[in-house]
Amino acid sequence: MDRSIVITKDSRLLVGRDILLLVLAVGSIWIVTFELAFVHQPQLITSAIIYTIDAIFLIHIWIGTRSSHRDQGAKRGGPIQSLYMRRGLGLLLVGTLPIDALFLFIGADLWGISLVLWFRLFRMIRLGLIFDILRQLERSTRSNTAALRIARLITVVTVVLHLLACIWYLIPFIQGFPPDSWPVRYEVVTGGVGMTYLLSIYWVVTTATTIGFGDIVPERGEEYVFAVVAMLVGASLFAYVIAAGASLISSLNLSKVAFWNRVNVVESYLRSRGVRRSVSEQVHQFYEYLWTRRGGLYQDSLLIDLPAPLRLEVMSDLMRDLLPKVPIFRHSPPSLRNELLLALEPVTTQPGGYLATEGDAADGIYFIAHGTVEVVSSDGETIYARLGAGEYFGDLTLLLGERRSASVRSDGFSEVFRLGVDSFERIKSDYPELIDVLTQASQERSSTVAELVLEGVVL
Amino acid sequence: MDRSIVITKDSRLLVGRDILLLVLAVGSIWIVTFELAFVHQPQLITSAIIYTIDAIFLIHIWIGTRSSHRDQGAKRGGPIQSLYMRRGLGLLLVGTLPIDALFLFIGADLWGISLVLWFRLFRMIRLGLIFDILRQLERSTRSNTAALRIARLITVVTVVLHLLACIWYLIPFIQGFPPDSWPVRYEVVTGGVGMTYLLSIYWVVTTATTIGFGDIVPERGEEYVFAVVAMLVGASLFAYVIAAGASLISSLNLSKVAFWNRVNVVESYLRSRGVRRSVSEQVHQFYEYLWTRRGGLYQDSLLIDLPAPLRLEVMSDLMRDLLPKVPIFRHSPPSLRNELLLALEPVTTQPGGYLATEGDAADGIYFIAHGTVEVVSSDGETIYARLGAGEYFGDLTLLLGERRSASVRSDGFSEVFRLGVDSFERIKSDYPELIDVLTQASQERSSTVAELVLEGVVL
Amino acid sequence: MDRSIVITKDSRLLVGRDILLLVLAVGSIWIVTFELAFVHQPQLITSAIIYTIDAIFLIHIWIGTRSSHRDQGAKRGGPIQSLYMRRGLGLLLVGTLPIDALFLFIGADLWGISLVLWFRLFRMIRLGLIFDILRQLERSTRSNTAALRIARLITVVTVVLHLLACIWYLIPFIQGFPPDSWPVRYEVVTGGVGMTYLLSIYWVVTTATTIGFGDIVPERGEEYVFAVVAMLVGASLFAYVIAAGASLISSLNLSKVAFWNRVNVVESYLRSRGVRRSVSEQVHQFYEYLWTRRGGLYQDSLLIDLPAPLRLEVMSDLMRDLLPKVPIFRHSPPSLRNELLLALEPVTTQPGGYLATEGDAADGIYFIAHGTVEVVSSDGETIYARLGAGEYFGDLTLLLGERRSASVRSDGFSEVFRLGVDSFERIKSDYPELIDVLTQASQERSSTVAELVLEGVVL
Amino acid sequence: MDRSIVITKDSRLLVGRDILLLVLAVGSIWIVTFELAFVHQPQLITSAIIYTIDAIFLIHIWIGTRSSHRDQGAKRGGPIQSLYMRRGLGLLLVGTLPIDALFLFIGADLWGISLVLWFRLFRMIRLGLIFDILRQLERSTRSNTAALRIARLITVVTVVLHLLACIWYLIPFIQGFPPDSWPVRYEVVTGGVGMTYLLSIYWVVTTATTIGFGDIVPERGEEYVFAVVAMLVGASLFAYVIAAGASLISSLNLSKVAFWNRVNVVESYLRSRGVRRSVSEQVHQFYEYLWTRRGGLYQDSLLIDLPAPLRLEVMSDLMRDLLPKVPIFRHSPPSLRNELLLALEPVTTQPGGYLATEGDAADGIYFIAHGTVEVVSSDGETIYARLGAGEYFGDLTLLLGERRSASVRSDGFSEVFRLGVDSFERIKSDYPELIDVLTQASQERSSTVAELVLEGVVL
Repeated sequence: MDRSIVITKDSRLLVGRDILLLVLAVGSIWIVTFELAFVHQPQLITSAIIYTIDAIFLIHIWIGTRSSHRDQGAKRGGPIQSLYMRRGLGLLLVGTLPIDALFLFIGADLWGISLVLWFRLFRMIRLGLIFDILRQLERSTRSNTAALRIARLITVVTVVLHLLACIWYLIPFIQGFPPDSWPVRYEVVTGGVGMTYLLSIYWVVTTATTIGFGDIVPERGEEYVFAVVAMLVGASLFAYVIAAGASLISSLNLSKVAFWNRVNVVESYLRSRGVRRSVSEQVHQFYEYLWTRRGGLYQDSLLIDLPAPLRLEVMSDLMRDLLPKVPIFRHSPPSLRNELLLALEPVTTQPGGYLATEGDAADGIYFIAHGTVEVVSSDGETIYARLGAGEYFGDLTLLLGERRSASVRSDGFSEVFRLGVDSFERIKSDYPELIDVLTQASQERSSTVAELVLEGVVL
Repeated sequence: MDRSIVITKDSRLLVGRDILLLVLAVGSIWIVTFELAFVHQPQLITSAIIYTIDAIFLIHIWIGTRSSHRDQGAKRGGPIQSLYMRRGLGLLLVGTLPIDALFLFIGADLWGISLVLWFRLFRMIRLGLIFDILRQLERSTRSNTAALRIARLITVVTVVLHLLACIWYLIPFIQGFPPDSWPVRYEVVTGGVGMTYLLSIYWVVTTATTIGFGDIVPERGEEYVFAVVAMLVGASLFAYVIAAGASLISSLNLSKVAFWNRVNVVESYLRSRGVRRSVSEQVHQFYEYLWTRRGGLYQDSLLIDLPAPLRLEVMSDLMRDLLPKVPIFRHSPPSLRNELLLALEPVTTQPGGYLATEGDAADGIYFIAHGTVEVVSSDGETIYARLGAGEYFGDLTLLLGERRSASVRSDGFSEVFRLGVDSFERIKSDYPELIDVLTQASQERSSTVAELVLEGVVL
Repeated sequence: MDRSIVITKDSRLLVGRDILLLVLAVGSIWIVTFELAFVHQPQLITSAIIYTIDAIFLIHIWIGTRSSHRDQGAKRGGPIQSLYMRRGLGLLLVGTLPIDALFLFIGADLWGISLVLWFRLFRMIRLGLIFDILRQLERSTRSNTAALRIARLITVVTVVLHLLACIWYLIPFIQGFPPDSWPVRYEVVTGGVGMTYLLSIYWVVTTATTIGFGDIVPERGEEYVFAVVAMLVGASLFAYVIAAGASLISSLNLSKVAFWNRVNVVESYLRSRGVRRSVSEQVHQFYEYLWTRRGGLYQDSLLIDLPAPLRLEVMSDLMRDLLPKVPIFRHSPPSLRNELLLALEPVTTQPGGYLATEGDAADGIYFIAHGTVEVVSSDGETIYARLGAGEYFGDLTLLLGERRSASVRSDGFSEVFRLGVDSFERIKSDYPELIDVLTQASQERSSTVAELVLEGVVL
Repeated sequence: MDRSIVITKDSRLLVGRDILLLVLAVGSIWIVTFELAFVHQPQLITSAIIYTIDAIFLIHIWIGTRSSHRDQGAKRGGPIQSLYMRRGLGLLLVGTLPIDALFLFIGADLWGISLVLWFRLFRMIRLGLIFDILRQLERSTRSNTAALRIARLITVVTVVLHLLACIWYLIPFIQGFPPDSWPVRYEVVTGGVGMTYLLSIYWVVTTATTIGFGDIVPERGEEYVFAVVAMLVGASLFAYVIAAGASLISSLNLSKVAFWNRVNVVESYLRSRGVRRSVSEQVHQFYEYLWTRRGGLYQDSLLIDLPAPLRLEVMSDLMRDLLPKVPIFRHSPPSLRNELLLALEPVTTQPGGYLATEGDAADGIYFIAHGTVEVVSSDGETIYARLGAGEYFGDLTLLLGERRSASVRSDGFSEVFRLGVDSFERIKSDYPELIDVLTQASQERSSTVAELVLEGVVL
């Protein structure tokens, strides 16, 4: 038990670390490409940032290679290690070791750009890491996948737009700004670095959003070629954003749509059959309740998927307040109690719904988990008693083989666990001590029920 | 019962109130931002409107904080109160109290715009309210979610486009219209307020729809920055509209597509197996019937999801015309009648389909709910009798343990409730009085059935 | 039976008629609006066409109001009548009666356009009819909904683009072509009607596809207003086309994706459990077979949805070749045969799969519907016999209570109907004559099986 | 068995061949159209390539018409043959026979373009082949449909863009470059073939991505007409790409979304019921395990779809390591073993979950397939033994009718197959020898279990 709590805490920490790594990876790629395309020479401040980030990454790799986890469940693999290992340690080191620093002192240029900056492009290997981290984050924070899918989309869009903007300016720069190149034509060269970047980004955004104002257009062969590439990449990106968005919205609505479609069919069936408004309103309220409280899943199918050992654990915990209150459970040995717990079927009752009617043959024992039920006369006028959570009825008729001498009506929505007569018989044949338990339990009834019995009400 | 009707009426009233609040919230945001960006000084008429809306909102908040509801079901929470409470009373008051009115008499300006108008921007807090109201409306008018999702989409689009248009004009205005700003270049300043707003909206729509004519383009740093933002916001909005539309259309078609896909598979299976056209046509007609009348849900799974107390209520109402007509039900005590009702299984019969064949062993009692069935000889030629809604057959063979001496064929589609022989036996063992009920009932048969019996037809 | 065939034929005729009405409705709307916007005066030829179409519509309305159908099933309502009635007869007559013809002789103009043409706009009421017809067509040709959804999309797009083009030119025309209006600026007025229409359509398409070249742009207030409207309408249309397309493609892939997703999970489970390749290949082939032949629906769930009377009809037809061949069915009275047919469960066997093993206790009778099975020794080496469609095995062990003395293996995929031992016992208790039938049938076995029995093989 | 492996190998070969055919078909269409539109006269090198491709196709057709396959399963039809046959041999020959070669020596021109090139357009019949191949590839490589759908999309887009570019340039070329045609206006004619093609493609991409820079626009009637067509085609293509992408992404997420939606509902139900964090964490871990290891399919529904003969094959293979280890299976005759295998139900147990509790009545025999379970005292403190894969428990209590005298707890996740007491009784009544088998087996227990028995632990 403790162990799993530790893991949960751990995983929250890991999410923080993953987000930090993500920011660092995106940041270093941004700096490296921006400086190459628009500044052309390494600056002190950026160098400092880059090497700090490198150091952080190196420390993480070192920790990752040293830590070893026992890999038993799905969540226990060491996320740091696996993140790094998946891409191969060598590759990661190439993307992290400050090889470029060597050229800081040599200072050679290539096409007017410092070799330092060219070598720093190795950091773009971290692009793969970004997607690894995003996938890792999705796995560890399942509860909020929508936000993560949006975050991933924004990351992809940002990175692609930025890279396209860098290349769009790099092409004429490397060629030495021919007079018909776009920075010269639109007099961008004279502006500062900021303005240059702004105009590059502006053109790329104009293109990728398929807006295409046409105020900045290519005019030379190389520009046309890159424009075609940028248009195809940009429009594909736009198409991908729309497609991913459509899929995301659909997935958010999936269960809702399926549920309410179904409800609509049921309600229009009832309407077509001339069912009275008061009844169809009860049906509507039930579905409303089901959707708001159970996400549209019928309570009895909620736990049915769980394998028996886990369902037992959940049922024991669900009933942990009832177990000591209900004499039947209190007097049962563990094996019998488990058997009884697994046999309970949940029943949700609408306000005013009848769980039992006077004259009914015994059909099982009902344990009230939530809400209140009223023991009433057959005409529903006289209320003999109210039973709340932790109380139960139906054992007497089952033991004595008599008919019910009162009805039971729900006040508001209530949730009840029912031990059906078939399950009761099955368990009784395996555990004959059940009869003793029931007899013993019947002597420790709550005062409410005891009074009922005195009044001659048999349920 | 009455209570729920009151709630229904109430909720229709509340929908009206919500729509009014929605219009007022959108209207006040529109006026406040429009006046700020394009008029710059408060006008008498707009002030009057704004303060009237404020007053209405204040009254509503006052009512909301005073009214208290019993919160029992999902729908009974007070919608006004919850709407306001969710955002916090303080925040709402900040967005509603006419703080700006103080400056009406002082008259100070900021960047050429009256401080009154700047302070009125607090009304934009109502943006949050708009989405609350839309969510509230969706919940209270479940039946027509498609229309509401479209309404929400249009609201979002309208608000975003308007806000972008305001900012697009505000930027050069605050800077005092530099000669290369877009209103000066395109000679918009000389036009009236209407023309200015029109051109701003025109540019924003051109951009957000990703059309991008390019007749109005940014030319200064600030304009480029805002254009990039507007393009990203606008294109995202366009992508969102497409995505939401795709999800909406898919959700409308979801059950239809799933149903007919399935039908196609069944029909192509029958075709591949060489089933005769007349039979496969019957199958097709059945599915057509199922889709048109039941929205594709098989009748027997329509009510199966409802918990027993609610299903009993629905079945009682569905059969309320039959209950007094059918002697079996009339003579049963309530407990037995409930047991019988819950045990009924619906059967839909295609035109010409046989519900029973001469020589069949007793397999249950059939109650006709809709349509007509014909009692015919084994060759189907002689029609002994026609039974309509409210009549039943199958009890004699069950009581006497004999074989059926005639067949029963459906004329047109008919819907029948069947009490299977197994359920019959089970109920009989719990309620031995069932035999008496049946015997008693057999003496009160309808004249049609009585005649049949006289003719020696045993069903 | 005959009746339903008639209806089918009928419905094919009706589809033809609907398509004709659709073409006429679209055509008349196109002519009426085109002539108004671009020709301005009525031409002889178009008048002739319009009045001919009117006449056809009037005749149809007359037929529709006179014909009366018996409305029993979903498909039997008279489609012509309902088409016209839904929109109201009066409204349709307004859209069809040639009121405009009166003005042909008077010849008055409004804003330079003949009043005849203005009055002809009443034909646009047929727009509603177009959607009615498309909905009607979708209902009557369920089998090919994809094509119809595309047809509807194209109709909507065409109509909207055309109408926008008409209005885009009408605005400056009605104003008498101010010098800064777009037809004057772009020198469109001098071109012929065709060129004018072409340029209008060109601008509208440029806008609605969100391409927005920007070579033709608005420049006057009215043009800006209309451009904003056209952009919003056009972009919404484009968004709708994408959204509808996405929904359409998804719906076509829906069952395929769900099926193969599931198969992938099963196969990767088998792989992870180290199941041998030859076994997992068998599983894959089975699913391949299921998808190709059954559209991914497991055979036993194909007919389970059908209500008993219809399932009986289908099963009788599916087995109509076997029924006279199989002695068990031949000797059964109809009631027993029906009972047996409804109790059969289909089993699909993969190539080399064993339906029975030597030493098996009797578990039912197997009727071979398709494919061939081999009766083999327990080691699978010796083949005693081959049984094909129409033969059966398993009755002897059931009758004698003995163990099987040989195995049965499928050669290729085969489909078998199984009468389980439980169903057999249940039917036997209701129909004791089953034993006589089986005994009688065992004397008429096919020569293959008779030989087997002589060899001492008991199945 | 062998046969299916051969087919698998074969199909991998066929995939290679299909990809080659695809490349050749796309390549020849590209060359043929490019040369026609931009080069106008046949070049030696392209002729050589074209005729080589023709030869390869002819050889394939020849092989295809000669090879004959036995068509038994879905995958055994000859793919080459069917590919060619579907389109009709004649049509394919028209598209493949080098009819154009005749004109190589005649050298006549049509509209300034060699007749050779016009006749080569017959190769465009291969467009149909491309889609056949893509469909074929999808069928033979089911495992990776996403990649194939993307490949198909890219092929369609590439082909359409290329063809549009060719026509966009062909129109003015055939008209002899009028002075206001676009190549003259934008001085494209003077550039080389490459530049011409680049600008054509640039315009088409600008249009089809709906970017529409507007730097190259139509100005003559024919150009406007083609531009309208190109815009509609291009925008439809763009819409199709988005729609197909949305459908693709949705389909990839389909099962994931459905699974986690469901898990969220269960977990929020548990939270709303106040279930303790340690229990809900166990539930979460179970679902995590289910998703990672089983793709979200509950193990017991994984194999349930398979028909009995196939399920038996799979179960035998799944248990092939256990079968010889477990004495029960080792001593069972084949029929009994099959019956036992088919009756096993899989149970997944969470870490720390209890499979059995001290005092339990016998409820079945548990075979451990994966993981380890601990036999512990009722308080869970004392560990009597550990049982691993291949061991089993529960037979003693079943045989002796006693209660369990120890509990069994899972260490980590374990997978267990359970033979329920009901199945046990059913099989025992059909195969009385089961008792002998169990008795015999109990004498060959593993030393661990034997020791347990000596210690008096009865399970």
